[in-house]
Amino acid sequence: MEHTVTFQIAETGATATAKVSTGSLLVEALHAAGVEIGQPCGGQGRCGRCIVQVAAGGKVRRRSSLRLSQEDIAQGYALACQSVVEGDLQITVPLQEKIERRLTTDRVAAEVRVPDGYGFTWSQTIRRVSLSLNPPSMADQTDDWSRLQTALRAQANIEQVNCSIALLRRIGSVLRESDWNVTAILDTTSGEAAGLARLIDLRPGSGSEEDPLWSVAVDIGTTTVTVWLVDLISGQVKAQVAEYNGQIARGEDVVSRIIYASKNGGADEMQGLVVNTINALVELACKRVKAKPEQVVKATVVGNSTMIHLLLKIPAASIRLSPFVTAVNHPPLTTAREVGLDFCPEATVDCLPGVASYVGADITAGVLSSGVDLTGDVTLFLDVGTNGETVLGNRDWMVTCACSAGPAFEGAGVANGMRATEGAIEEVWVNSGTYEPTYRVIGAGKPKGICGSGLISLLAELFLSGVLDKAGNVNLTLKTKRVRQGEHGGEYVVAWGAETEHGKDIVITRVDVDNLLRAKAAIYAGFTVLADQVGVSLADVGKMLIGGSFGKYINVEKAVQIGLLPDMPWERFEFLGNTAVRGAYYALLDWQARQRVAEIARRMTYIELSADNTFYDAFMSALFLPHTDMGRFPTVEAALRKT
Amino acid sequence: MEHTVTFQIAETGATATAKVSTGSLLVEALHAAGVEIGQPCGGQGRCGRCIVQVAAGGKVRRRSSLRLSQEDIAQGYALACQSVVEGDLQITVPLQEKIERRLTTDRVAAEVRVPDGYGFTWSQTIRRVSLSLNPPSMADQTDDWSRLQTALRAQANIEQVNCSIALLRRIGSVLRESDWNVTAILDTTSGEAAGLARLIDLRPGSGSEEDPLWSVAVDIGTTTVTVWLVDLISGQVKAQVAEYNGQIARGEDVVSRIIYASKNGGADEMQGLVVNTINALVELACKRVKAKPEQVVKATVVGNSTMIHLLLKIPAASIRLSPFVTAVNHPPLTTAREVGLDFCPEATVDCLPGVASYVGADITAGVLSSGVDLTGDVTLFLDVGTNGETVLGNRDWMVTCACSAGPAFEGAGVANGMRATEGAIEEVWVNSGTYEPTYRVIGAGKPKGICGSGLISLLAELFLSGVLDKAGNVNLTLKTKRVRQGEHGGEYVVAWGAETEHGKDIVITRVDVDNLLRAKAAIYAGFTVLADQVGVSLADVGKMLIGGSFGKYINVEKAVQIGLLPDMPWERFEFLGNTAVRGAYYALLDWQARQRVAEIARRMTYIELSADNTFYDAFMSALFLPHTDMGRFPTVEAALRKT
Repeated sequence: MEHTVTFQIAETGATATAKVSTGSLLVEALHAAGVEIGQPCGGQGRCGRCIVQVAAGGKVRRRSSLRLSQEDIAQGYALACQSVVEGDLQITVPLQEKIERRLTTDRVAAEVRVPDGYGFTWSQTIRRVSLSLNPPSMADQTDDWSRLQTALRAQANIEQVNCSIALLRRIGSVLRESDWNVTAILDTTSGEAAGLARLIDLRPGSGSEEDPLWSVAVDIGTTTVTVWLVDLISGQVKAQVAEYNGQIARGEDVVSRIIYASKNGGADEMQGLVVNTINALVELACKRVKAKPEQVVKATVVGNSTMIHLLLKIPAASIRLSPFVTAVNHPPLTTAREVGLDFCPEATVDCLPGVASYVGADITAGVLSSGVDLTGDVTLFLDVGTNGETVLGNRDWMVTCACSAGPAFEGAGVANGMRATEGAIEEVWVNSGTYEPTYRVIGAGKPKGICGSGLISLLAELFLSGVLDKAGNVNLTLKTKRVRQGEHGGEYVVAWGAETEHGKDIVITRVDVDNLLRAKAAIYAGFTVLADQVGVSLADVGKMLIGGSFGKYINVEKAVQIGLLPDMPWERFEFLGNTAVRGAYYALLDWQARQRVAEIARRMTYIELSADNTFYDAFMSALFLPHTDMGRFPTVEAALRKT
Repeated sequence: MEHTVTFQIAETGATATAKVSTGSLLVEALHAAGVEIGQPCGGQGRCGRCIVQVAAGGKVRRRSSLRLSQEDIAQGYALACQSVVEGDLQITVPLQEKIERRLTTDRVAAEVRVPDGYGFTWSQTIRRVSLSLNPPSMADQTDDWSRLQTALRAQANIEQVNCSIALLRRIGSVLRESDWNVTAILDTTSGEAAGLARLIDLRPGSGSEEDPLWSVAVDIGTTTVTVWLVDLISGQVKAQVAEYNGQIARGEDVVSRIIYASKNGGADEMQGLVVNTINALVELACKRVKAKPEQVVKATVVGNSTMIHLLLKIPAASIRLSPFVTAVNHPPLTTAREVGLDFCPEATVDCLPGVASYVGADITAGVLSSGVDLTGDVTLFLDVGTNGETVLGNRDWMVTCACSAGPAFEGAGVANGMRATEGAIEEVWVNSGTYEPTYRVIGAGKPKGICGSGLISLLAELFLSGVLDKAGNVNLTLKTKRVRQGEHGGEYVVAWGAETEHGKDIVITRVDVDNLLRAKAAIYAGFTVLADQVGVSLADVGKMLIGGSFGKYINVEKAVQIGLLPDMPWERFEFLGNTAVRGAYYALLDWQARQRVAEIARRMTYIELSADNTFYDAFMSALFLPHTDMGRFPTVEAALRKT
């Protein structure tokens, strides 16, 4: 029986038609209609690039829905390579960009709006008030500072205001240059109701009430620093920028940074490097909106505990030595001037509170922005960055731990590993018949190496196609040149020298596989220990939230296949992108959210894995693909049966 | 009739006896007994150097009691050159040192004790607490700062403590080096009752409760900086040091300093100069008691408004320009680190509040320590330093003004003027028959010039002896080589080149006299204006309190004779020395006294003389020796009649 399949190509607006018989795959219909569609995985239903949308009522049978959520299916999405035509169909081929976004599972809208939900209220602590002062005269010789205080009392209900000596130095000239019409910027954190405030800046003139008032939310990652430039008047994020943390040159992970900072002059240098990174980012963000960094009056900062210590130049040595305590989990409010940030000198710098040496403010902020602390569902929250921190909990309880996963997923400790920059292989498919790989390269040029998401998909593909066994051994008996004995044992060639940027083969070795297994085992063991700690089964977890720069690009299916993430229905996973900077943003806009972060830090029970014997057992059990206990990974078991 | 006069020489412990006839002067008896006694004024009853004490019942007739108070007379004191023997006498010749002290009218005891009276209560704001912390363990991974906060709460009732990032950086190492036994130094200014405090220092070990806790009271004079090193535990002043203000090299008076500081880099330089002076003084004081400047945890600072602005590097330009307002009369609390003082970095620096551009914290502190604000008597308080500030008032009301007297009394603007250092002529007597002078030189060497007190006594002597007329003209018709026509009009030679250090004549010229007249007229006119302002006559003033470094050495009698001080009974004058540093000391020890200073600053009504027409009239009337209205100076009139 013949069916008419009509394709609407979103990219071009064009239409195409094909007639195919019952049982044909949608990809065959696309070919027949002359529509090109990418199939990097070779039609194995794994990459999700051939996704199309079937109009309501259209009869298709999905042979696989690995890349599809329940919601996707409800909306008619189907994988062209895995869907069988069973009637006339109206098919939309979505925008390539939309597919890309879907694949990278970046659900963070590019334009961040004022957050709502989770009890968010609009109550940021910075006030801007226009003041008109009576000039001094022989009849009124009141000093400038008292005159300003009087105006703040009378015109802004501010009973008591503090001011640094540094700012006092500027007041007289600002008052006179502006003919006694000024705008005061105040921080009311210490108690707006009581009329207490701290003067941040005094600017000439009065301006408009709609003029932006600049602030920043900063996430200092071990690898990447992210800055959101926020207008405190509209609450909107006006620019988002990110850059490598300048400290990378002095160590890839937190431990090597701590060691470096403990050397003579090292702490100054480390502070300088990250301060320079932030300053450069804020300058860049400001340029985009024609603002100036010295207009920034508040910064809310998150990061892991080591990053916060290094920013404030507080010795971090105790973080890496037993019993692993920080100098401070909840740093006092400070100012840009004290830290060396090139903002308005008296700008408030609020470093949000962390929980422990290895569960920092990036995690408490992540919990804030993901709402773990408010939900009724048992929720597992994972922030995969240079370290992997995990929170398990809900509105009633929360436990947390950190796994020293190491930077393997950031490409370190892997022969051809690299960070997720141009030239990195970010996704790989391996044909289970020929063992030939297909890969996608960031920037679409020649590959230079493999980044974290590429390593995860490579590992999963090699396992599913039988190149690697459960223990990570390379099957050297396979009939393919891709598999060979290398210097460090068996290895698999992902790209031949002829196709790479540097002319050398890009391989994954047995040693690399071991490193990756240890990293994923550490993270998975963390889940297990937390669940055991509170007597919950991972199967009872209602939501699996994934944050962090790395989580943003992770391919869940493959991450489950290697046993990095627990095996649970697709729709329970949620990818939140950088939850840390988002939490900082919420706390910046809302003092109640800020107080909630402190409450989160207080409420979370920290489990020190190095003191926990069950962790070692869980880790050893997880050092396999996907796990010694295959019963924990039913979908992977099913996929293995299929290949 | 012969009388036996027995002398007890306190200096040597020796006894001497003389027999003299009725009507002999005591000096003649001293000569007869072979006792040497200084008579710099040549027996004119003016210098007070020949003072002796007559045992009870002894019959002497005092021909003059100019240098004697009622109390002195009650105690038997008499001037040997002015006292007539009328019976047998037991005479004590006091210690020379005691006379010196009496003459310089320095009634400030060298060892200052904890003040009492004036409602002083012992309640300084710095707390020192020994803490014993539980070390961290794998079972208790609390961060260092929270651990310290917990100990402060449990062991010292401190509910909320602030800490600078700079100090936070040191906490971890102090805790570990001291095996978790530490001493915390806290400032509880913000509210001890509420359990609020700021951490100033954390020191290893616990020490003894009696160990000193160092602080300083600082008076920044335009010319001289004074530092008292105070132990906050005993409340005692343990060292007193003073040195020229390093800013002198950049201008003698406040106006030239303000101008200099307004130039590029001038403010930095000015701050650096005075900070260096204070640092050096504190180091010197600390050395005396084997302490270290970094142990100093609090400083209470006074000075005129310009000095405080320059210390804090707050622009002072508006002080010298109409309408003469300061940037700040009441600077916020700051820290040694912010100011650049080499104390404990987080030491509290409390600059006491001033009233106006030319009535600063040195005056409010002077009022505090002299008790003007608490007394029932109408009191006139004069602080003569580089400027002359005056307060008139009592517990019900206070008015104040500043006279730009200029630095004439500090030796500036006078041909042979100099500061009161070695080689300065500090007192002069002129024989009214021969016009020959006698003088006393600081350090007893050859004279180099004349200091303030020397200028006052010279002016008075020249006037009383007829060398100068009422208007300050030199009488060139006198038959003495001492009087001559100089380059700048008439002049009087105080010392011939042969007797001076530099081999040149030391003279006082007509121009010098004019400068001195203007200076003294400004101060006296200030008294007049204040008295007029509140409708009080100077004759109703019950107490005349004189403070300031210059006031310390002033000869009241001569100061009255030239019309600098009002003519009133000797016992109404009280010389308090440096009332400013004493007030700073009180405020340092006692938070209620500190609040009283703020109350004093609020209560004082400032009279701006440059806006007051009556001042000009009063000034013109006072430009004479002693005044156009001789009725205001009855004792001077009497003295003139006598000569």
